[in-house]
Amino acid sequence: MTRTPQHAEVDRVFHALGDRTRRLIIEKLSEGPISVSRLAKPLEITLAAVVQHLQVLEQSGLVRTEKTGRVRTCRIESSGFSVVEQWIRDRRSLWERRFDRLGALLAESDEK
Amino acid sequence: MTRTPQHAEVDRVFHALGDRTRRLIIEKLSEGPISVSRLAKPLEITLAAVVQHLQVLEQSGLVRTEKTGRVRTCRIESSGFSVVEQWIRDRRSLWERRFDRLGALLAESDEK
Repeated sequence: MTRTPQHAEVDRVFHALGDRTRRLIIEKLSEGPISVSRLAKPLEITLAAVVQHLQVLEQSGLVRTEKTGRVRTCRIESSGFSVVEQWIRDRRSLWERRFDRLGALLAESDEK
Repeated sequence: MTRTPQHAEVDRVFHALGDRTRRLIIEKLSEGPISVSRLAKPLEITLAAVVQHLQVLEQSGLVRTEKTGRVRTCRIESSGFSVVEQWIRDRRSLWERRFDRLGALLAESDEK
């Protein structure tokens, strides 16, 4: 993904990743898809709280959940991660361009 | 940076980036170093609040501040961004490795 993410998307993803429990959920899901109930067990919070965290993660494109019969399975979704990476790349390109300009100016003044 | 960041570092950086005002500060600083007072103006929050946000950003390696005479100047510091990028890369490598294994298994079962 090379397009610059929208402000609202960026806000959602960083808000989602700002919570430690949600990052733990992502770390767990990186190892493979898992059911909501199995995901909840080691987290030591209520199932309702896990479901709420999953909703935040789904809305920010970091997780996808799917219901088959009575089991809801969660898996990683990569688009949210791309939003973060692109946001950082955009900032980095700004400050690196500035360094380049500064370098060119210094080189120029050396030549004089 | 290729080393895997420590949990506490990851926590600090994501907590710092989870706040919209702090992300606005970073977006501004990406354009170039600026004094605290000039940074505070368009944010429409008190100088004390800006200073607090800057402390959080400094502690997570996203911003550096330096006092020269009576002026404190803020600039982007890249190490915090590397922590985020590395955390995502580590997760991504886990789930991509899993996809590779899955692909290999499917190819194997095709051959049978």
